[in-house]
Order: sequence, then C-alpha cells, then structure tokens
Amino acid sequence: MSVQIVLGSKSDMKVAEKAIDVLKELGIKYRLSIASAHRTPDIVDKLVAESDAEIFIAIAGLSAALPGVIAARTIKPVIGVPVSGTVNLDSILSVVQMPPGIPVAGVGLDRGENAALLAAQMLALKDKTIARALEAYRKKLRDKVIQDSKEVEV
Amino acid sequence: MSVQIVLGSKSDMKVAEKAIDVLKELGIKYRLSIASAHRTPDIVDKLVAESDAEIFIAIAGLSAALPGVIAARTIKPVIGVPVSGTVNLDSILSVVQMPPGIPVAGVGLDRGENAALLAAQMLALKDKTIARALEAYRKKLRDKVIQDSKEVEV
Amino acid sequence: MSVQIVLGSKSDMKVAEKAIDVLKELGIKYRLSIASAHRTPDIVDKLVAESDAEIFIAIAGLSAALPGVIAARTIKPVIGVPVSGTVNLDSILSVVQMPPGIPVAGVGLDRGENAALLAAQMLALKDKTIARALEAYRKKLRDKVIQDSKEVEV
Amino acid sequence: MSVQIVLGSKSDMKVAEKAIDVLKELGIKYRLSIASAHRTPDIVDKLVAESDAEIFIAIAGLSAALPGVIAARTIKPVIGVPVSGTVNLDSILSVVQMPPGIPVAGVGLDRGENAALLAAQMLALKDKTIARALEAYRKKLRDKVIQDSKEVEV
Amino acid sequence: MSVQIVLGSKSDMKVAEKAIDVLKELGIKYRLSIASAHRTPDIVDKLVAESDAEIFIAIAGLSAALPGVIAARTIKPVIGVPVSGTVNLDSILSVVQMPPGIPVAGVGLDRGENAALLAAQMLALKDKTIARALEAYRKKLRDKVIQDSKEVEV
Amino acid sequence: MSVQIVLGSKSDMKVAEKAIDVLKELGIKYRLSIASAHRTPDIVDKLVAESDAEIFIAIAGLSAALPGVIAARTIKPVIGVPVSGTVNLDSILSVVQMPPGIPVAGVGLDRGENAALLAAQMLALKDKTIARALEAYRKKLRDKVIQDSKEVEV
Amino acid sequence: MSVQIVLGSKSDMKVAEKAIDVLKELGIKYRLSIASAHRTPDIVDKLVAESDAEIFIAIAGLSAALPGVIAARTIKPVIGVPVSGTVNLDSILSVVQMPPGIPVAGVGLDRGENAALLAAQMLALKDKTIARALEAYRKKLRDKVIQDSKEVEV
Amino acid sequence: MSVQIVLGSKSDMKVAEKAIDVLKELGIKYRLSIASAHRTPDIVDKLVAESDAEIFIAIAGLSAALPGVIAARTIKPVIGVPVSGTVNLDSILSVVQMPPGIPVAGVGLDRGENAALLAAQMLALKDKTIARALEAYRKKLRDKVIQDSKEVEV
Repeated sequence: MSVQIVLGSKSDMKVAEKAIDVLKELGIKYRLSIASAHRTPDIVDKLVAESDAEIFIAIAGLSAALPGVIAARTIKPVIGVPVSGTVNLDSILSVVQMPPGIPVAGVGLDRGENAALLAAQMLALKDKTIARALEAYRKKLRDKVIQDSKEVEV
Repeated sequence: MSVQIVLGSKSDMKVAEKAIDVLKELGIKYRLSIASAHRTPDIVDKLVAESDAEIFIAIAGLSAALPGVIAARTIKPVIGVPVSGTVNLDSILSVVQMPPGIPVAGVGLDRGENAALLAAQMLALKDKTIARALEAYRKKLRDKVIQDSKEVEV
Repeated sequence: MSVQIVLGSKSDMKVAEKAIDVLKELGIKYRLSIASAHRTPDIVDKLVAESDAEIFIAIAGLSAALPGVIAARTIKPVIGVPVSGTVNLDSILSVVQMPPGIPVAGVGLDRGENAALLAAQMLALKDKTIARALEAYRKKLRDKVIQDSKEVEV
Repeated sequence: MSVQIVLGSKSDMKVAEKAIDVLKELGIKYRLSIASAHRTPDIVDKLVAESDAEIFIAIAGLSAALPGVIAARTIKPVIGVPVSGTVNLDSILSVVQMPPGIPVAGVGLDRGENAALLAAQMLALKDKTIARALEAYRKKLRDKVIQDSKEVEV
Repeated sequence: MSVQIVLGSKSDMKVAEKAIDVLKELGIKYRLSIASAHRTPDIVDKLVAESDAEIFIAIAGLSAALPGVIAARTIKPVIGVPVSGTVNLDSILSVVQMPPGIPVAGVGLDRGENAALLAAQMLALKDKTIARALEAYRKKLRDKVIQDSKEVEV
Repeated sequence: MSVQIVLGSKSDMKVAEKAIDVLKELGIKYRLSIASAHRTPDIVDKLVAESDAEIFIAIAGLSAALPGVIAARTIKPVIGVPVSGTVNLDSILSVVQMPPGIPVAGVGLDRGENAALLAAQMLALKDKTIARALEAYRKKLRDKVIQDSKEVEV
Repeated sequence: MSVQIVLGSKSDMKVAEKAIDVLKELGIKYRLSIASAHRTPDIVDKLVAESDAEIFIAIAGLSAALPGVIAARTIKPVIGVPVSGTVNLDSILSVVQMPPGIPVAGVGLDRGENAALLAAQMLALKDKTIARALEAYRKKLRDKVIQDSKEVEV
Repeated sequence: MSVQIVLGSKSDMKVAEKAIDVLKELGIKYRLSIASAHRTPDIVDKLVAESDAEIFIAIAGLSAALPGVIAARTIKPVIGVPVSGTVNLDSILSVVQMPPGIPVAGVGLDRGENAALLAAQMLALKDKTIARALEAYRKKLRDKVIQDSKEVEV
C-alpha cells in the first residue's frame, strides 16, 4: 500500500475526498483513517508504527498538530493539509511552521488534491507508471485551461 | 511535586526562567525538562505518564504542538506558553486554537510568569498557603504600580 | 457552587451553551450571568466579590476585556473564551495577550466546551469524582473518533 | 484641570511624553498617573470617579483593556492609545474594537501626540484659546512640511 | 447644527443609520451627506469648509481615507468609522493609523452607534442636556444587560 | 517633465532615493516634493493641479492616503509606494485597497525602484528611448543574477 | 489592440467582467484569454511573446503568480488584480510584494474595474480620446455620488 | 544528481546553507544555482528542463513565485522555502497557497534544513542508505534534546 490518509476529524472528509479522487485517478493504493493527535494520540502512534504506507497525508484544522505528530514518529514523508475554519491562519501556520529537524510538506488550505498529487510525485521517483499518470493528469489540467479559454476568449 | 515545566527547545529557557522565578517566590515545587513534541515524542509521552505533577506548563514556539500533545495524554490541566519568533501568530494560534474536547490554557506570548501564576491559582483552590502567597504577590504588583505612579505623577 | 459563567452579552449564549452541556455532563454545579465589563462594570465587580464559585469562565467577543477584568479582581482561575465575529483576531488576542501578573487561561475561539473541560480539570485536582467523569468524557471522545473512523475507513 | 493621562504601565512613558509635550505646547492642563486595569483596578475606578478632568487619555499595550475600562465608568470622552510590542495588532484591536454602547476614541499605535491633539480639538469646541493654539500648531506642521520639501526638492 | 455625518459611499448607509438612531435618541442635530475622498474630493473640501457642524463623523470602507482627509482640513474633531468588507483590516488600519499631527478618533468596525455616542460625549463637555441624555442612554444599556441576565440566569 | 515624486514625509526619502536612482539611470526627468495628504492637503492639490508631470509616484507610510488623494484629483496614472513601519499591513492595504473608480498602481513595501520602473514602462509605451533603456536595465538585472549564480554555483 | 486580459482560472471571470465593462465603455480594444502561470506556463509565455497588446491585466487568486510571471517576460506595464477567496491576504500580498526590478501595478482585491481604468490612464498618456473618455467616466462617478447624496441627505 | 537547489536571490544564501549542511551530512548529491522567476525566467525554465535532479528545492522571499514556477514545468517534487523579510506572511502564503493541480511542498520560514530533510525523506523511499542516514540524523536530534534537558533539568 502506498499512501495512508489520516483525518483529524470526520468533518475533514470533504478535503479527504479531493485527495481520494486524485489517488484513484492516478491508480495509487491508499488507506483512510480518522485519528486525532489530540483525542486518540495512541491510535495515531499505532497507525504510524504499523502502517506499511510509504507516505502519509495528514488533514487537520485549527491548531493542526496531526501532520507534525505523525512526522515526529516516522522518517517517511508526511504531507500536511490545513483545513479551513473561522480563522484559517491557525491551521496554515500550524502545518507549515514546523521546527528544525522534523519537516512537514505543507500544501494549501483545503488542498486535498494537491496532497495527493505531491504524494504521487514522490512515488513517481521510482514508479514510471505513476509518472506517466501524472503526465496525463497534467495534460488534462492543461487541456481544461485551453478549453476554458476557448469558451471565453475575445 | 506540583508543576512540571516542559520546554520544546533549550532556546525557550528565557521564558521558562520567568515561570521558575514566580514558582520559587510562591513556594511551589516544580521540575523542568526539555522534551520536544516533534523531536522526542516518546520522551514527552513518558514524561506525562510518569510525572506526579499536578499541572503541566508547556512552553514552545513556531507550530507549538507541545501543549496540545501533553494535553492529549493527561486530564491534568496543561498551560501553554507561546514563544515569540519571526511570525508570532504561529505559536499563539497553535497554542490557543485547540479542537473541542482537549483544552489547553493559553497564556500570552513569552508570558512564563503568567503560566506560573495560573498554575498557582489552580493549586490555591485546595492550598491556602499558596492562596496567601498569591494574595501577597498581587499586593506587590499593586504596590509597584502605585510606586511607579508616584515617581511619574503630575 | 463550582463554576461561575459570565457572558459579556446575550449574543454569546450559543458559546455558553457548549460550556453548560459539558458541565452538566460532568456533574459540576455552575451559575450563569450576563455582565459586561463595559456596560455594567459595577455588576461584574459585585459578581466577582460575592461569588462563592471556585473558577470563572468569561465569554466575550470584540475587544474582549471581560476575562481580564474579572481576573483583575480575584486570584481564582479565570478562563477566557473569545467569541467569533467579523475580525476574530480581536477577541483571541484580547483574551490571550494579558500583561504580566494577571493571567487569563485562554481557550480557542467559541470553544465553550473546552472552557468547561478546563474548569473540570482544575476541580479534578481535588475531586476524584470529577476526575473520573473527565476520564469517562475523554473515553467517549476517543470512542467517537474510533467509531467515525470505522464509518469511513478504507 | 482638563486632561487626565493614565498609563497602564511605567514602560508606556515614552508614549505619554509625546502627549505631554503637545499638551504643554497648547497650554492645556493635565495630570498623569499610572494605574493598571489589571493590576490596580480599584485605583482606576477611584481615579475616574474622583477626577475633575474633562477628558481621559488611556495608554496601554498588549490586551489594552485600560481605555475601555475607563470608558465603562464615565461618560466623558476617553482617548485610547495602543502601545507597540511584539504583536501590535493586539493593542490596536483591543483599543478600537469596543462593543456597541461604550466608545473609545482610538488613535494610532504609539501616537501619544495625536491623543493630545484630539483632546485639544474636543476642548476647542468651547475654548477659543485652545482653538487658536491648535491652528498655530497645525500651521507649524504645515511650515515644517514646506521647509522639509524645500530641503529636498528637485 | 452639531454633527455632520459623511459617508464615503451609499453602501455605508447601514452603518450611518446606527449613528443616526443614537443622535436622534440623544436629541443631537445632525446632517448627512455622501461625499467621497476619492470620487468627489472637492465636495469633501467644500463640505468641510462650509459646514457649521462642531464634529464630523466619517464612515468609509476599504482604504478608508475619508476621515483623514476631513481631519486634514479642519481642527474640529473627526470620528472615523471603518466599514466591514472582504478584508476588514484594511479599513480599520486606514482609519486608525493616522500620522503624527492629524488625529482621527477611530471607533470599531461598523460601529456607527459608538461614533454617535463619542460625538455626544464631546458635546456633553459643554451641554448638560446631552450629558443627561448620555447618562440615560448608559442607564438603558445597563438595564438591558440586567434584563438579559435575568432571562438566562442560572 | 515626466514624473512627479511626492513624499508624505521627509522620513520617506530613503525609499524615494531608490526611485530617483532608477529614473536617473533610465534618463527620465523627474521632480521631487514633500507634500502631506494630512498636513498640507492644499499643497498636494496645488501640486497636482499645476504639475506638468505625466505620472505621479506617491510614497507614504501608515494610513497611506497620499496616493489615493492624488489619484482623486487627476486622471494621470498614480503609482503608490507603501513605506514600512511598525505594522506594515497598514500602508500596504491603504495603498492597494482603493475603492472602485479611482485606481492606484500599488507596488511593494519600500519598493521605490519598482515605482520608477513602472513609471518608465508607462512612458515607454510612447517613447522608444525609454523602452530601450528598460531593456538594458532588464538585461543588467539578468546579468547580475547570472553573475551571482556563478559565484555560488555548485 | 491595446489591452490583453489574462485570467488564471475561469472562476476569475466575474472580476474580468468588471474590467471588460469599463474597457468597452471607454472604447478600448482588448482581448481576453485564460492562461495559468502554474497549469499552462508555456501558453502564458507564448501569449506574452506574441501579443501586440500594449498593457497586460492579469487576474488571479491564491498564490497569484500570474501577474509577476507575465511581468518577468515583458517590459510592458502589467496590472495585477488579486482575486478574493478564503484567505485574501494571500493573493493581495502575492500580487503586490514583487521583488526589486520587476514591478507589477497592483490594484485592490477583485477590483477589475480599477485595472481597466489604470490601463486607460496609461493609454491616455498618448491618446486624447481615451483621456476624454476617462474625464467623462470620472464625471459620471462624481455625478453618481452627488445623486446618491441627494437621495439620503438630511 | 539528486537535488537541485534554486535561490531566487543571492541574499537567500543563508537559508540555502542550512539545506546544504544537511544534504552533505546525509550524503546526498546536490547542485545550487541562483535563478529568479522574475528576473531570469528563461534560465529557470532551462534549469528545470535540463536538470537531471530528482527533486527541486526552491528558496525565495516576498511574492515567492519561484517554487510554483518550477512546479509548473516539472512533475518532480518541488519543495518551497519561504524566506523572511519585512512582512513574512507574503512569502509563506505565496509558497503554500498553490492552486489545485500544481502542488508545492511548503516548509517553514527560513527552514532550509527542513527542505533538505524532506528531500531526503523522498529519496529514502527508494534508497536505504539515505533512510539509514535519516534515522541517524533523527537520533542525533533526539540525543541533543536529551543532552540539553540534562543541562537544565530540575
């Protein structure tokens, strides 16, 4: 299995679904769990210790400690996705401003799809099929912009 | 022992010293350790599990996960002190914006002395000596303001 | 009586209700009043002076002076809950950024439930029944995450 | 006596001095005291109750409750001056974002001179001497800009 | 006539109405105009030059230059009301952060009522009827809080 | 004459000098004056009315009304340069967040050189000499990056 | 052709339409394309290289690189319009805070109409017809404010 | 070669050096160049097109377009490092808030060492030597915290 998605709360599912859609499209195997750095820290630890995933995607809002807490217990890459709420700078800064030594790869607010793509880019370093799927995805994005432009061009 | 102070990094000592000075003045027993939520998560867990302290004071900067990580593993009160740096809103929001269910008692940026006083206020709920020490401390603060005012009054 | 909840305005009731639900569930006695640091300062003073509560929870928005004003007149612990509005950083920073000497225990924006839990944690330092109720509450939170995870796990 | 300046802390003197210089220049009588909304709330109350000043200037940093606390106990105009520190948005928003019903006249960060000028403008509504002094002050400002411009003009 | 209200745009009427309601209740004469610092600067100048008002209330959003532009052309007190929009910090900081020499009395975001009350406080320095009206208004505010408290008290 | 630089205060000269250096290098005629939107509004008006400049560069800090006030009185392009201070978001947002109908061309904080380059780009629309000077300037920038890279490349 | 409008995404059309309405009213020829700095960088490059437009208007949200990327490949003036979203400071700061050497003319959040007017102001430096159209537009704005004022004046 | 570091400006070298020190310690081959998204866009394009690196680390301040511009032209992972300056939120948000489809892996402000560690974590997915080096590095971090704690423990 390649990617373990961890949500801090069930309410983050809308962001997780964006990640899942991309992983499916790129043919990447994933698992999804809810495990909170604050409410079930032991389950987070167990999940990280027992997972055979190569990459973690951690999705959380507010004081979003989840990506950092996972990163603290593995040397596998951890991608952090801040989730929007009332303040927004809270989750963005919590995900990005990690101390020296323990990196998290922060993507944009609610950007589940970018977390999946970033995971795919990492896997593509050793998997040509995923690299090709990424190239195709990128082409589709490009075609969509070209198509959109045609519809509005003056 | 009453209060366990935990620093996320040795560079947070200047804030810890403010807390220690107050705890000493109020006659409250404390212990001090450095343990990072990100670099030594197992030591944080062990410290929380084995500590006989009644209250934790956690001091950390940047994406300050430490107070929340401690709070996740105990039902004892956890006081969080955000430490100043280049951004400042990062540590303040990380300490304060905890998710529902797992509170941290956030004090102001670099306010180690207030963390100690808040711990003392909690202990004073059952310890009259500390209550009296707090009253004396409060009186000293008040006298200092009155004295300062006399020096500048017009 | 254990906890005195004070609202700066009737419009803060939605946040107070979160606190009340938790206090009830944990079997903690409380009282609730509206008293504004700005519109009825004398009533705030009287409330603090006459209350037999052990802990105050002060809930306020905008330039949220209420928690600090209460803290200025008691050495009992004061928990401050910033309430959301148009700016949000105003109430968060007003609650948290207290000057040296007079601490407020700040919780997150609109986090009435965490204020109640924090009060319970303080009371649990000397009341084993509340400690057990907190353990049960924590277990319920944990079970909810596990249940939520089961519903979405892949 | 016309203007009562109140400082939250002796460290705010540098901002108070800017106010004093202007009040002196405009020939406005003032008094200066240090009194903290958080450390000496009773002294603030007494000061407000007993003062024969027509206008208050309250200078404070961090969670700057002082102007609002004074405003809560008088219907005289209260001018609030936020003082700079590590965060700055804290004192600005605390001074400005007052709830409906209790206004504070907020001036800029560290702008003691503007607080004095605003007080003078209020007094000038009924005192022609002050009005003339303000006109002269304004002219001096203007002349300074013209002089500065001459020195650099190209 | 006592108070001249100036709106930067018709869309600011909702904030102006809060001011008008208070001025009417306090028996203070006012006039209302729309005049934009950016779209009709000459009309702003003319309005200020020809007005017999004692105090200006300027209401504006975005880069809210209107209060400062009025203040630049009169020594009468100018009260600035920032209006909410997409960013909010823009209008708050534009109103408050005036340069040395030209004060604006900033009130909170959308706080038209506080602008009116602040104007009344200034006028009350020489008009006992307004002072009494302000005392009555303050009492009404207080009674409302007491009434609200009775409705929810536990 | 092509470009009129206006400073809100003599303290903004360091930013103006960056603009002057670039204008000189590109062979563009300019004039420089200090005129404050708040302290000498009539001089600003006169300067705008009488200037034969094609473009204005307005440099100001804090609640930086100067660019907007100039833009309000001319249909010539106005370039606004926010100047750094204690808050920074104040001048940036004041310059950029202009209301509909009256644009200011905002450049970055303290970016006097970019204001000059932007003015040159506008003039180059009808002046081939300036276009060529801009191409040369751009080439020099590029060569500098290439040279810098050579010095550090690994 | 005079103005090339480039959108980073089809979702920015609402802001583009404000620009188009103004360009049409002023009689300025324009073209509109969608081209993303991130999804179709080669098309952006080609568009800039092949365009005969005199001015570019680039409209983008989030990390709004588009205006800067266009500015990097031309010495023609580039006007940047930040588009609102969940954070807003992201697009404003990305558009405005360009490095030394490569200016973008930043206008306010979602201010498509101001981008068009700024472009017109630049073109008016050499086209009297556009200058007259701008004068007429400005007069219309002014008349609208006067008319609005008449409707609400008291 | 494994990692290509790209700096937007020579002034970012202090952040690059943190990355280089870590890459050297982990035995990872790297190259370093300066290439600006705004001043030398063609060199950035060429660098990306011709590089045989597996991962890019892009370091830039202000409106930090460089990481996104590189990400737009490759499907290899791009790690973005925002560099501190006068505003700081500008570079953080520019790096993190990428649009859907083109991810950048954002690390903290000035966190060159974390960019290197994140790159190593990606390479370790297929290179056991790097994985072991990372484990050793992590152990060293841990030992340092333990050693620091011993020095201050009470």
